Amino acid sequence: MGRTTILPDISLSPSLISHLQKAIPQDGSRDSLLGSVIPSLLKSVAEIAKDLQNSHHVSAAGTSNTFGDDQLNVDVQAEAHIRHAITSCPAIVTASSEEDPVERPVVHTTTTTPSSSPSQHQESYTLAFDPLDGSSIIPSNWTVGAIIGLWDGPTALNVSPSTSQFLSILGVFGPRTTAIIAIRLPSLPSVCLEAAFDSLTRTWEVTRPSLSLASASPKTKYFSPANLRSASDIPQYARLISEYITDAYTLRYSGGLVPDIVHALVKGHGVYISPVSARHKAKLRRLYELCPIALVVECAGGKAVEFENGGVDILEREIKETDERGGIVCGSGEGVVEAVTKLFA
Amino acid sequence: MGRTTILPDISLSPSLISHLQKAIPQDGSRDSLLGSVIPSLLKSVAEIAKDLQNSHHVSAAGTSNTFGDDQLNVDVQAEAHIRHAITSCPAIVTASSEEDPVERPVVHTTTTTPSSSPSQHQESYTLAFDPLDGSSIIPSNWTVGAIIGLWDGPTALNVSPSTSQFLSILGVFGPRTTAIIAIRLPSLPSVCLEAAFDSLTRTWEVTRPSLSLASASPKTKYFSPANLRSASDIPQYARLISEYITDAYTLRYSGGLVPDIVHALVKGHGVYISPVSARHKAKLRRLYELCPIALVVECAGGKAVEFENGGVDILEREIKETDERGGIVCGSGEGVVEAVTKLFA
Repeated sequence: MGRTTILPDISLSPSLISHLQKAIPQDGSRDSLLGSVIPSLLKSVAEIAKDLQNSHHVSAAGTSNTFGDDQLNVDVQAEAHIRHAITSCPAIVTASSEEDPVERPVVHTTTTTPSSSPSQHQESYTLAFDPLDGSSIIPSNWTVGAIIGLWDGPTALNVSPSTSQFLSILGVFGPRTTAIIAIRLPSLPSVCLEAAFDSLTRTWEVTRPSLSLASASPKTKYFSPANLRSASDIPQYARLISEYITDAYTLRYSGGLVPDIVHALVKGHGVYISPVSARHKAKLRRLYELCPIALVVECAGGKAVEFENGGVDILEREIKETDERGGIVCGSGEGVVEAVTKLFA
Repeated sequence: MGRTTILPDISLSPSLISHLQKAIPQDGSRDSLLGSVIPSLLKSVAEIAKDLQNSHHVSAAGTSNTFGDDQLNVDVQAEAHIRHAITSCPAIVTASSEEDPVERPVVHTTTTTPSSSPSQHQESYTLAFDPLDGSSIIPSNWTVGAIIGLWDGPTALNVSPSTSQFLSILGVFGPRTTAIIAIRLPSLPSVCLEAAFDSLTRTWEVTRPSLSLASASPKTKYFSPANLRSASDIPQYARLISEYITDAYTLRYSGGLVPDIVHALVKGHGVYISPVSARHKAKLRRLYELCPIALVVECAGGKAVEFENGGVDILEREIKETDERGGIVCGSGEGVVEAVTKLFA
C-alpha cells in the first residue's frame, strides 16, 4: 500500500499570520481564510512534500507503478491530500482539479464553526488546482510544484478571473518545502510572499515577506523559454531568443512551471514564455495553471499575458470550460512588454 | 546556532550492496569501500539533505547570513558533514574540497578495523569533493547536488585521472534524496546506479540499478546549454543551439551541474555543454567537478570531453593544481561526438 502521510496539526507562525492579515479584511467577512482555508491548504502542501520524500519507486507520475499495483502514484496521493484538506473548510463549496476537471460540490466531513455562533457572513469559494505539476521531471528528482487558485462564489466558470480569483498558493517541493502565497482583495494591499515549512517545529514561517518582479535594475536578467521546439515554426520566437543571448540574459529552464516562476520571483527578475503555434498546441490549462500563476505574478508587480489574442492579460478573459488551454508570456513587466512587442511585431 | 543533523546509523539495502559488489574485487584488497567508505559518504549525503530541509533562512550559500552570525551556511555545514564522515574511514588518507582546495592528511578519530586482525591490504585513497554545488539556485529551492570523487593513492595530482579516480558519488538534493554511484576498477564490470534514501527505514536502496546514456534510439533528445551568453562570442556554439532547436531537441537547463547531468542519466539521453572563450573563462573545477562527473558519464556508457584542447577526454589529462578549471561537453556518446565535430569544425 502506498505510504500516505497525514501530518499531525501544523501551525502558521505569528509573523506569517500578520503578513497575510494585511491583505484580508478584518471585518469578519472572510474569517475562514485564516480560520481554515489557508492552514488546511498549507497542511496539504506539507503532506505532499512528505509523501514525495519517500516515493522512490514511482518512476513517473501518471504511469502505472512497476513495484505493485496497490502503491498509489504520487500525483494521485497529492490530489487526495488536497481533496481531504478541503473537507474541513466549509467555505469551500466547489472544487475541481487537473486530475478531475469537473466542478463538483465539496462534501464536508467536519464542521469547524461552532453551531452555537453561526457566522453572520456566508463565505462561499471555489477551489481549482493542479496537485502535482511537472511530472516529466519527477523521475530525475528535480523540484516540482502544486498550483492552487481560490475563487469567490460557487464556480470559476463564466466569471471575471481578475476579480473572482483572489488567492493563489504555489507549493514548491525541492530540497526544502516552500510555498508562494498571493492574495488580492478590493481596498487592501495585495500580498505575494514566500513561506517555508520547518519540519522540526511543524510550522510555516515567512521567509520572504514581499516578492517583487518590479525591480528597475535587476543584477541579472533571466529568461525561461518553454516549448523551445516551436521556435522552428515561430521565427519571431527564434529571433527573440537570439536577442536574449546577445543581450546577456541568463538561461534557467527546468521545464516545471512552478519552479520556473518561483526562480524569477526569488531572483527579482525573469521572463517566462510558453508559445503556441499551429504545430505546437497549447498545453497549459487556463483554470489550473495560467490563472493562479498570473495572480502570483501580478501580486509581485509583474505582468502575465496570453501568447495569443494580441497579448491581453491572462486574467482578462472568462473561462468557459475547465479544460481550456493557452500560451503565456509572464514575469517582470518591462520584460513582458518588450517580449510581446517583438513577438507580435 | 545552526541546526546540524548527525543521523543515527543508516544502512545500505542488501540489493544495493550486491549491485556494488559486482564492481569491487572480492579478494579483500578493497574491503574498506563497502566496510566504511561508501556507507560513510552516503550517510553524509543524507545528513546534508536533512540540513537543507530546514535551512530556510540561508538566503544564499557563500554569503554571510542575515539572521545571526552564529548560524552556519549550508555549504559550510555540508563540508563539515563530509569531513566528519571520512574521520571514520582509515583508508581515506588525503582530502581536499572546493571549499578548502588544499590536499591535507585526514586525521582519523575512530578506528574501525580491529587491531587484533590487521588487514593484509593497506588501502590508501584520496577524496576530492564539492560539498554543495549550485549555490545560485539554492534560494529558489531548486534541486542541488554534492560531487565526490575517490582516487587511488595519497594524491589526486600528477596521476592519470582515468585510472586513478575509480569511484564517484553525486548526492542529489531534491524532493527526494538520491545518489548516483559510479565505480570502475580493472577487470570488473563498471557500475553506474541510482540509490535513494528512505527516511522512514533509514536505508539507502537501489532505485535504478543501471543508468545508461548509450541508448541507440532515445524517445526524446535533451540538451543543456551552460554559459549560454558565450554564444554571442562563439558563433559555432550559437549555430549548434539553433540546430538543436531545428532538430527538435528538448531544452532542460537548471544551472546546477549535478541535476543537469542526473536528468540526462535518468532520461537515458542528453548533451551538456559548458563552453569556454576568451571573454567567458572556465568556471568548472577539473578536480572537484569535471573528473567525478566524467567518471559517472563514462560508467553510464557516455562520453565526457574537454571543450578546449580539441575535445580530448576529460580523464585523459593529469591535474597539476587543485584549482584547475575547464569547459566540458558530455553526455550521450553520439551526441557528444556530433557536438564536438560542429564546435571544432
